[in-house]
Amino acid sequence: MAPFTYRRQLTIDWGQCDPAGIVFNSRFFEMFDSNTWRMFHAALGVRPHELTVAFGIMGIPLVDVRANFLKPVRFGDIVDVSSRVSEFRRSSFDVEHHLPINGELAVEGGETRVWATRSKNDPEKIGGTVIPADVIAKFGAA
Amino acid sequence: MAPFTYRRQLTIDWGQCDPAGIVFNSRFFEMFDSNTWRMFHAALGVRPHELTVAFGIMGIPLVDVRANFLKPVRFGDIVDVSSRVSEFRRSSFDVEHHLPINGELAVEGGETRVWATRSKNDPEKIGGTVIPADVIAKFGAA
Amino acid sequence: MAPFTYRRQLTIDWGQCDPAGIVFNSRFFEMFDSNTWRMFHAALGVRPHELTVAFGIMGIPLVDVRANFLKPVRFGDIVDVSSRVSEFRRSSFDVEHHLPINGELAVEGGETRVWATRSKNDPEKIGGTVIPADVIAKFGAA
Amino acid sequence: MAPFTYRRQLTIDWGQCDPAGIVFNSRFFEMFDSNTWRMFHAALGVRPHELTVAFGIMGIPLVDVRANFLKPVRFGDIVDVSSRVSEFRRSSFDVEHHLPINGELAVEGGETRVWATRSKNDPEKIGGTVIPADVIAKFGAA
Repeated sequence: MAPFTYRRQLTIDWGQCDPAGIVFNSRFFEMFDSNTWRMFHAALGVRPHELTVAFGIMGIPLVDVRANFLKPVRFGDIVDVSSRVSEFRRSSFDVEHHLPINGELAVEGGETRVWATRSKNDPEKIGGTVIPADVIAKFGAA
Repeated sequence: MAPFTYRRQLTIDWGQCDPAGIVFNSRFFEMFDSNTWRMFHAALGVRPHELTVAFGIMGIPLVDVRANFLKPVRFGDIVDVSSRVSEFRRSSFDVEHHLPINGELAVEGGETRVWATRSKNDPEKIGGTVIPADVIAKFGAA
Repeated sequence: MAPFTYRRQLTIDWGQCDPAGIVFNSRFFEMFDSNTWRMFHAALGVRPHELTVAFGIMGIPLVDVRANFLKPVRFGDIVDVSSRVSEFRRSSFDVEHHLPINGELAVEGGETRVWATRSKNDPEKIGGTVIPADVIAKFGAA
Repeated sequence: MAPFTYRRQLTIDWGQCDPAGIVFNSRFFEMFDSNTWRMFHAALGVRPHELTVAFGIMGIPLVDVRANFLKPVRFGDIVDVSSRVSEFRRSSFDVEHHLPINGELAVEGGETRVWATRSKNDPEKIGGTVIPADVIAKFGAA
């Protein structure tokens, strides 16, 4: 487990909520994606839009993503989204997101992403490449 | 396995895609949610906004949701989103979504939802209630 | 007035609506943008993602956009979004969108867009270029 | 002109940008709507989701909205969204939004909204009601 944790406080907007008055599910994936980029910024000191150039990658595309909804999150709720890398592998990594309200977990999310480059022979082809050791080190992982 | 399958063809819009030119992940959860409501319309003959009144429920809220991304989906791609209930339980059910491009699976998704009512004593409390047998029957499940 | 009109029927999704049960305003701009690309496809026979390559442009960026809300549009409503170019100028054009429900206008929108290229000297600079006469002709304008 | 101005700094997310690498237009309307609610919170001390109850209204629905795009806004850009009420009328008001990057105006937006209640005879009917003088006073208008 990489101990580095990024936290961001958000207030839920009207436009993020559905007719039941609770956050529409796709909006959590926007929050998760935003938090992952910001976590890299906080851990590496590289701003999100400079990450690809700084490390010679095309991006950190998702392989899979999931969310579990434990309690409803409503318009005006103040939530803390905390995110950390739960595992770094050779060319992919897992991110865990926790979203509590008043100390109780309301939503948890998980992502698997690839540290990806475009194939030199076929730029349409995207594949994983080795995650630099100093990237992993900055997240505090062994 | 409930054999009823709902299919919908979509053309990917500019506004659904990110700077890498591929569909931003949260957009797939919009497509999945839309397809689940439309599947109920097709199976039960009840329009989405009339589903709650027709069955005395507050909605079909998500308990968890996931997606796996196998191939990139791009601006202008024509995709077929097919959805079916993979399992009905007492008061919850699972939906599977498949999104192929040119016959190859690009994205698969899964949802677990609750057939939900508000508690009479505390309308803030939401809980599962028994899914009517004739709802299940219309999906063709045994 | 270019007489070519593109029409598309949509059913309003749960995820497009806010806690008041009506479509959240930003969602109309997604519908407008989608319709403009589809209108070019229908008028020119060029698929949206091939428009830039076919005409050597970087895109058709918005200069300004507006919407007027006359009647609420709700979850499950069936709407007809009709779009046409109301004026072609040298390197820019105006699009009008009408969104009636049951024959009554509910929302109207307007866009001004540029037929744009990137500067050869500075790719960060984007500017208008002459709209080809045969593009204008295909919309039926004089 | 009501002198009260609400300001919020935002960093543009990956998921807000389109394949041209710039913010997709509908995303600005999400930012505008969010800022209007937060401006009321800051001016009145009433949290967004409590505004309707505190003032006996059903909401502050949009009558019309517009945006002008002067400069592209990109992934990673840090923007300051400032919002103020430019005019209060009997039962409606105008909001102006300015979004500069590095001191240069990139996007400006405008909204006209109604201080609205539901008709007692027909809850489907929504109409304007008088904006309380103390609401207007808290924005510093004469």
